[in-house]
Amino acid sequence: MSPHPSAPIGVFDSGVGGLTVVRALMERLPFEDIVYFGDTARVPYGVKSVDTIRHFTAQITQFLLEKQVKMLIVACNTMAAVAVDVVHQLANVPVLDVIEAGARNAVNVSRSNSIGVIGTPTTINSNAYARSIHHLNPGVRVFSQACPLFVPLVEEGWLDHPVTRMTAHEYLRPIFVEQIDTLVLGCTHYPLLKPLLQEVAGPDIALVDSAAAMAEQTAQILAERQLANLARHAPRYHFHVTDIPLRFQTIGERFLGRSLANVDMVKWN
Amino acid sequence: MSPHPSAPIGVFDSGVGGLTVVRALMERLPFEDIVYFGDTARVPYGVKSVDTIRHFTAQITQFLLEKQVKMLIVACNTMAAVAVDVVHQLANVPVLDVIEAGARNAVNVSRSNSIGVIGTPTTINSNAYARSIHHLNPGVRVFSQACPLFVPLVEEGWLDHPVTRMTAHEYLRPIFVEQIDTLVLGCTHYPLLKPLLQEVAGPDIALVDSAAAMAEQTAQILAERQLANLARHAPRYHFHVTDIPLRFQTIGERFLGRSLANVDMVKWN
Repeated sequence: MSPHPSAPIGVFDSGVGGLTVVRALMERLPFEDIVYFGDTARVPYGVKSVDTIRHFTAQITQFLLEKQVKMLIVACNTMAAVAVDVVHQLANVPVLDVIEAGARNAVNVSRSNSIGVIGTPTTINSNAYARSIHHLNPGVRVFSQACPLFVPLVEEGWLDHPVTRMTAHEYLRPIFVEQIDTLVLGCTHYPLLKPLLQEVAGPDIALVDSAAAMAEQTAQILAERQLANLARHAPRYHFHVTDIPLRFQTIGERFLGRSLANVDMVKWN
Repeated sequence: MSPHPSAPIGVFDSGVGGLTVVRALMERLPFEDIVYFGDTARVPYGVKSVDTIRHFTAQITQFLLEKQVKMLIVACNTMAAVAVDVVHQLANVPVLDVIEAGARNAVNVSRSNSIGVIGTPTTINSNAYARSIHHLNPGVRVFSQACPLFVPLVEEGWLDHPVTRMTAHEYLRPIFVEQIDTLVLGCTHYPLLKPLLQEVAGPDIALVDSAAAMAEQTAQILAERQLANLARHAPRYHFHVTDIPLRFQTIGERFLGRSLANVDMVKWN
């Protein structure tokens, strides 16, 4: 049975970071319903084993397919890096992942064909961005760096703090010596550090975050597959999470850029 | 049925940090078998909701009781802070938790009766150290501070790094103005930062970590209950974890202070 245009778009992430993608979708596709899943009880994924991430990814994909979504968006870089094939195998609907979207965006932006990528240890170790970029253009040189402290720094709210600036200099020094002109922010938390990272990177390096690129590519895919919702009702947004921790509302709204309602907690364990 | 002296001691934590307690137990009680459980698939607990932490704690307690342990040691400060009653309810064996042990140690060490406590947000918000210290001596003043970046800094291995030093100054400034003479390291990761924290705190503040205190109190409890293992065989150590992530061996051995063998992965989800 093929999906129906009135069905919602499913977006998932290991936690709240994927709300940056939801925010971009709300703006680009204001009549589409969205169902979000954030695995807040088991976040972060970036430090877990590949087997465990693949197992969790399959669970979440099944959950959203049961919600009758018409498309699946993998907002989590770590899941996209090591488990996107699991999603494709299970899903009978179009799938878009953040790495594919970010790689396409970076290749379009870069003039020097030297691209830097930053992300969690699992994303960087997977080498998924380099593969995806080389698939689009084998001539590009890719320089990557894991930045495990950026997620906790964002969650601490130290978005413009001397500790964060010093950490950024330390992490980015090795890739800045490579004459890159484009830096991919390969984690949904990193867009919140964009002003600080732009200052550290200087004006000659373009920072690429994937949220806007994903929203644009989602619009294209829905149009091509005749899955766009043509009704002009106010959309419904539904958020499912596996835990509602301390400061969830504050942190969630920081990512979503607006108030966060209609949140359900899923009990899995 | 009461437990048998030849049975193992059960130690559990949200991740690998509790291995600092295992290390102290190995040294203080070299003939006792130990079964360790670390919930590495769901770590960290310090940023999760109280309900979720209580649910996970019950699961782990049941797991270790099925291994026929003669005593349960709650090495995780976060579980001790918000879920130790869950362990007491389920267990038919003696229970020792890290907060009780650390509070007792701090009260014995302090001369000024002004004690600082640092830990994860959940541990600090629970106020469990203040309650435990006041239970022992209502005249003590307690000043506490959440330090959410210390765990990721330890896991990054930045044990003696300018970023860690700057972060420590930022976190500790508000409690140092209170004339404390004792600082409780209320998280199993923090003993690895002891040299740096001692330097930041200066020579007049005693740093209290609970691993050695727990080993001592465990020895007392086993002797009192006639549960000490009198056999003089080489002990068996068994480690159960819910995930074996990247760098698990390296990080685990950093905490345990020796090589880490006999590790089993438990599949729960």
